[in-house]
Amino acid sequence: MDETVMLGHGSGGSMMKRIIDEVFFAAYAGDELRSGNDAAVLPAPGPGERIAFSTDSFVVSPHFFPGGDIGRLAVCGTVNDVATSGARPQYLSCGFVLEEGYPMADLRRICASMAQAADEAGVRLVTGDTKVVNRGKGDGVFINTSGVGFVPAGVSLGGDRCCVGDRILVSGTMGDHGITIMSCREALSFNADVQSDAAPLNHLIARVMEAAPAVRCFRDPTRGGLASTLNELAAQCGADMVVEQDDIPVRPAVQGACDMLGYDVLQVANEGKMVCVVPADQAQAALQAMRAGDYGQDAAIIGEVCAARPDRGPKALIRTPIGGTRILDMLVGEQLPRIC
Amino acid sequence: MDETVMLGHGSGGSMMKRIIDEVFFAAYAGDELRSGNDAAVLPAPGPGERIAFSTDSFVVSPHFFPGGDIGRLAVCGTVNDVATSGARPQYLSCGFVLEEGYPMADLRRICASMAQAADEAGVRLVTGDTKVVNRGKGDGVFINTSGVGFVPAGVSLGGDRCCVGDRILVSGTMGDHGITIMSCREALSFNADVQSDAAPLNHLIARVMEAAPAVRCFRDPTRGGLASTLNELAAQCGADMVVEQDDIPVRPAVQGACDMLGYDVLQVANEGKMVCVVPADQAQAALQAMRAGDYGQDAAIIGEVCAARPDRGPKALIRTPIGGTRILDMLVGEQLPRIC
Repeated sequence: MDETVMLGHGSGGSMMKRIIDEVFFAAYAGDELRSGNDAAVLPAPGPGERIAFSTDSFVVSPHFFPGGDIGRLAVCGTVNDVATSGARPQYLSCGFVLEEGYPMADLRRICASMAQAADEAGVRLVTGDTKVVNRGKGDGVFINTSGVGFVPAGVSLGGDRCCVGDRILVSGTMGDHGITIMSCREALSFNADVQSDAAPLNHLIARVMEAAPAVRCFRDPTRGGLASTLNELAAQCGADMVVEQDDIPVRPAVQGACDMLGYDVLQVANEGKMVCVVPADQAQAALQAMRAGDYGQDAAIIGEVCAARPDRGPKALIRTPIGGTRILDMLVGEQLPRIC
Repeated sequence: MDETVMLGHGSGGSMMKRIIDEVFFAAYAGDELRSGNDAAVLPAPGPGERIAFSTDSFVVSPHFFPGGDIGRLAVCGTVNDVATSGARPQYLSCGFVLEEGYPMADLRRICASMAQAADEAGVRLVTGDTKVVNRGKGDGVFINTSGVGFVPAGVSLGGDRCCVGDRILVSGTMGDHGITIMSCREALSFNADVQSDAAPLNHLIARVMEAAPAVRCFRDPTRGGLASTLNELAAQCGADMVVEQDDIPVRPAVQGACDMLGYDVLQVANEGKMVCVVPADQAQAALQAMRAGDYGQDAAIIGEVCAARPDRGPKALIRTPIGGTRILDMLVGEQLPRIC
């Protein structure tokens, strides 16, 4: 077997057939991939259901880090995006852009991780593509995954459905992924205590939807962190999103790293967390549903949707322990490139 | 407006919101994109229909060339892959990996081209993602598109359905795209006569399916050219794919370039051509259906599916004008990297 990726692996010819057979199919091929046609043909949703469709490209650096790797991220990220619509994620595509010279052993490890994450989420990798670029024109491996899910009849979630009085929940601690990547990249000493939270959250979402059927929306606070997510939700629903600083779960090691580096932990990326807005009377049920599974142990109710002040547009706001309230801005510029 | 892509455009914060609003939404946003949720929620296929799903990443260099650009290629390539299953392509996703410093004007031009190609194909760009990598870690712009289509009830196409006696058709001249890219890249003088064939072929496929309802399969001969496609079909159906060299349409300028460069034109990439296998008694109808539209004027019947010789596996074979027959090999190694 070839030990590194070569340009010929993207040729459409016999070398490409070899990388497909020996690397990709070895990791995760089902019947659709093996059929050898250009498109996978797949069962459609049931009566009254709709399709959820989402895409995400992954360029994280480094490719391997505590708690995950680019492959796990690529599967979980798209599974989570599809699941936020209330859909059951079903099918994933996978497009690789490989750089000439990339170690084949690393690619195999990434594919094995993708297969494992897909198994855990209960989705199938059904179609793929591989391109190879010359040395120096890429950075080892970039992965795009797109996902298709089925939205049950009657389910309609979205940021525009949040109402004044609703409660805001997060499924766990903030900032773990971003600080992990930062610590890998800068070889900082706090890395021992922190690992990426990369995880598929579709099962967590399904539990919440069952326990809190009037749930308004889910959103995963990835790039830009919780702050960007709350700003987006405020803009969508036209109300203030007000959170209590003391109620937001943050690991001490992550908070310490943020303090040292001058970051706001609420602008740091997460890859295995969900923000959820529910009517007040279902907030406890939603919280218990989150906590009932592996990825929701640290879930918390962190705030509330409030009427926007008439003299300004809808905002994300944070109440500090000393009783003040400040505007929680979206990230401006770039905090840490290539976090996912 | 920013004049080049900056790392902050991939941040998840306010700069990313700006590039989305001012570049992507300006070019092609429909309601699903503008809704601001992580996944598009879309109507499902009708009763008895299935989903076709395909993905393709585009790394072509240069980004602009006679007859098209990376954006047109990205839309047409995935539309065509979805359509080969017999599906009506419906929805596209679009994931950009941009390099810091890429001119915003070029990105706008690419997005406009994608919008135009999507209009022509009758598909909608419904979900997207943008990542930015540091200068020197990419090559301007890479695009992934994934596509979802609906397969009508009763339609089941695939290379494994080809039968001995079936006819093999191509929808037009071979090698135009590959030779165009080559001539751009090497600034060769034959480029005046040649342009890329990048085109959406879903309407052509729909015409053929109506005229020749027993059609076995479609396949677009992209990387690896007609030779790779015929080899794949032979392997899928277990029979020889035999074509007549004189019947394969090739532009004289393209043939001349291939002769000069030592390329086999049948291994050169196409981006707006379809190979199609139909029962013999529907071959003329399929041919006329191809020729009835813009992208099928040069369509031809080029060969036939024949029983494989018992002493060897199924092969792709070509009959030369002087009466010989030779094995048409798949491309080995790489002829021209980053053709699409």
